[in-house]
Amino acid sequence: MKIYQDTIIALATPAGSGAIGVLRLSGSDAINIVDKHFEGKFKTKNLNDVASHSIHLGFIKDGERVLDEVLVSIFKTPHSYTGENVVEISVHGSPYIQQQVLQLFLKNGVRHAKAGEFTLRAFLNGKMDLSQAEAVADLIASDSASSHQLALQQMRGNFSNEIKKLREELIHFASLIELELDFAEEDVEFADRKQFADLVQRIKQTLKKLVDSFALGNVLKEGVPVAIIGEPNVGKSTLLNALLNEDKAIVSNIAGTTRDVIEDDLVLDGIRFRFIDTAGIRVAQDEIEKIGIRKTFEKIKEAKVVVFLIDACALSQSASCHTDQHEAVLQAFETELQKIAQKYPEKKILIVVNKIDKLDQKDYPEELYKYPIIEISAKYKTGIEKLVAQLTDLVNKGQLAQNEVMVSNARHFQALSEALESIMQVDAAIQAQLPTDLLTVDIRAALHSLGEITGEITTDDLLDNIFRNFCIGK
Amino acid sequence: MKIYQDTIIALATPAGSGAIGVLRLSGSDAINIVDKHFEGKFKTKNLNDVASHSIHLGFIKDGERVLDEVLVSIFKTPHSYTGENVVEISVHGSPYIQQQVLQLFLKNGVRHAKAGEFTLRAFLNGKMDLSQAEAVADLIASDSASSHQLALQQMRGNFSNEIKKLREELIHFASLIELELDFAEEDVEFADRKQFADLVQRIKQTLKKLVDSFALGNVLKEGVPVAIIGEPNVGKSTLLNALLNEDKAIVSNIAGTTRDVIEDDLVLDGIRFRFIDTAGIRVAQDEIEKIGIRKTFEKIKEAKVVVFLIDACALSQSASCHTDQHEAVLQAFETELQKIAQKYPEKKILIVVNKIDKLDQKDYPEELYKYPIIEISAKYKTGIEKLVAQLTDLVNKGQLAQNEVMVSNARHFQALSEALESIMQVDAAIQAQLPTDLLTVDIRAALHSLGEITGEITTDDLLDNIFRNFCIGK
Repeated sequence: MKIYQDTIIALATPAGSGAIGVLRLSGSDAINIVDKHFEGKFKTKNLNDVASHSIHLGFIKDGERVLDEVLVSIFKTPHSYTGENVVEISVHGSPYIQQQVLQLFLKNGVRHAKAGEFTLRAFLNGKMDLSQAEAVADLIASDSASSHQLALQQMRGNFSNEIKKLREELIHFASLIELELDFAEEDVEFADRKQFADLVQRIKQTLKKLVDSFALGNVLKEGVPVAIIGEPNVGKSTLLNALLNEDKAIVSNIAGTTRDVIEDDLVLDGIRFRFIDTAGIRVAQDEIEKIGIRKTFEKIKEAKVVVFLIDACALSQSASCHTDQHEAVLQAFETELQKIAQKYPEKKILIVVNKIDKLDQKDYPEELYKYPIIEISAKYKTGIEKLVAQLTDLVNKGQLAQNEVMVSNARHFQALSEALESIMQVDAAIQAQLPTDLLTVDIRAALHSLGEITGEITTDDLLDNIFRNFCIGK
Repeated sequence: MKIYQDTIIALATPAGSGAIGVLRLSGSDAINIVDKHFEGKFKTKNLNDVASHSIHLGFIKDGERVLDEVLVSIFKTPHSYTGENVVEISVHGSPYIQQQVLQLFLKNGVRHAKAGEFTLRAFLNGKMDLSQAEAVADLIASDSASSHQLALQQMRGNFSNEIKKLREELIHFASLIELELDFAEEDVEFADRKQFADLVQRIKQTLKKLVDSFALGNVLKEGVPVAIIGEPNVGKSTLLNALLNEDKAIVSNIAGTTRDVIEDDLVLDGIRFRFIDTAGIRVAQDEIEKIGIRKTFEKIKEAKVVVFLIDACALSQSASCHTDQHEAVLQAFETELQKIAQKYPEKKILIVVNKIDKLDQKDYPEELYKYPIIEISAKYKTGIEKLVAQLTDLVNKGQLAQNEVMVSNARHFQALSEALESIMQVDAAIQAQLPTDLLTVDIRAALHSLGEITGEITTDDLLDNIFRNFCIGK
């Protein structure tokens, strides 16, 4: 493992103009170095002599030249984010000044921090475990109530504490079992086989629960994929716009915040949905259509929910807005619906009937009522709330309790799946009453996988992979 | 004057994702309100009972729901930026979380701050005078060494202290003189006329110096205007690009910072230059050309410096690259140069000879040497440093001493000019030994103008005008 001795600096706040910007230094020399360039406004006291967690008004000076009037916050080791001496300098929010102050320290023995280096140091100094460190990045990236909650839970250690506890119990038994091997000829049993079998069962169940939670956890983090199937003129983009108006969760009061509206990515009642536009499924007339249909099915495969959007006039043969052209649409719809239901019985299918404002008569086909039907007018924004409620219910119904531990990180899922596999081998070996030495390989493998999650077992490569995705300054 | 009783909040750091974001609250209730939603991580102590300038780790909670793990900094009245109770909440740098925490406080009796409201409160609470408050906005907007230095000086009060001192002395005399008027029939003189005349001289000289400093101060803040005259293919944009490469002052290490490169706006050695492209001046052939020429002269009028860019091959008749076409260019150049020198004798003219890499022979016309000549090859970036040195020398030569007081604010310039005019009236009246009551009107006018600079005299309109240009959160 690398040992970090040097002092690092980075801008901790977003780049750009604002009222203030915060530069953060960490390292054993951080307070010393800042003190050399700081002059208190009211009394000049060495920053080494002030209390931890105290704030000081003064000037950052490059020789005689004043760079800025600043607030300096002192955090003394080990009571800081990184566990090292940390200084936060709150400067005026001009990129020019931030750069000047940054340069001053870079000239004076401080190194620019690498991406995620503050959090990496926090991990290496035992301030948090690896899954908590990973949660910091997730928290910063969180943009919906559910991704935010997942990240916060993970950061507070709910999940890794459970893993750590199970791992410690397993280590206890593993050491007893390894001890038996040393006394193999005497045929003793230090580890109570009954207790051990119980523990393995408990671990298996917990791991299974966690592995299973990834399906929802990942979806909550990345967005619930919803495939929308519908004719080009059925009102897909009008519907997406109407849904966008329901999106009250995201930033409107923060001055200067603009949101890149990705047409297909909406946060509804705190849950992120990823709308996937598809071409629709027809009886293929030619090669190109065949490719389109294959792609549509691939996209439906990715989705958790299939929203079938159809024109109310097409559905209702007695309505005065129903035309001959609608016949083809209606037929195609019925065929497609059947195909999807057959091919993907596990998908939730929502039939959304649009343009109900045009309807004077209603005689929807009988078989439609096998699925939840939501009638809307995207144009007049009627029925939209009901659609949102149906979508969010799919996620919320009993599955998102406040304190439930949920895995949302692909790396954790991978490690948990491997641990589960090893533990199932151990379980099988116990059931088959195989000799002890055959257990130990799988127990070690399980311990390794579990240790990787919390960072009790790491490699430089693993750490590099995790922290290079952080922003600089965190 | 409005009295502010309520508690305000705003994001103090730039919008967007970063490691952290800072929300700032100010108002008598700020600490109380934050305390209600804060739970310390290690011990729960009422935030009203902690020391000023101390930092506390804990959670911001909306009821039972944790919104974020935060650092809370407490500043108690009057030892804060605004003079009121101030709390800074350092949250994780996700716009979603910032918005959530902001909304929590907006729901609980805190109002969103208006632009500049924190600084306005600082002014109203006597933490800084008006010119210092204005300097805060300038400081945040500063993007070159010189604009930065001007703003810092102004914020530290160098300039307003001088004004305040003179104004106080003037008030002293004014009150004595007004007293004389009360005893007009007795014909006494409370104010020593000799001392008074001396003071008026001193004020006049100081005001004159300050009014004169605006020409340079404004230019340093807004950029030194440089008119570039040259044929379309003489290499203007190559030159601007070469200059841009010299621009090492601005932000390169801050991750995510991109700079909008305005072709004509460059910071060279810490000084901002505004390059103004002109059409060049020829003997007009038609109406359209006449308009072009008039515009060129207008632009030259704006400029402090005229850079005349010319092709080395055109200048040097013996060079092998000299062609017949160059004859016309050379003639036009000589005519233009004369015209400009005649029309604007006060402008600094720099002749920049480009494309010297092509030159095998050199016989520049004699009269060229009346002006500073800089030979460059914009393409090969030779001579660029010399050009930069010439440009920056124009500003630096003795005019930008570290501690010289300089006016850069148009409002101050206006008020100073008015004060100067009034003081000159007073001076004239003293010289002409006019009766005392004729002095008082002008003295009052001078006091008013000086008071407007530091904010001893303000109106709501004036304050609105100043602070609405601030960013929200400052």
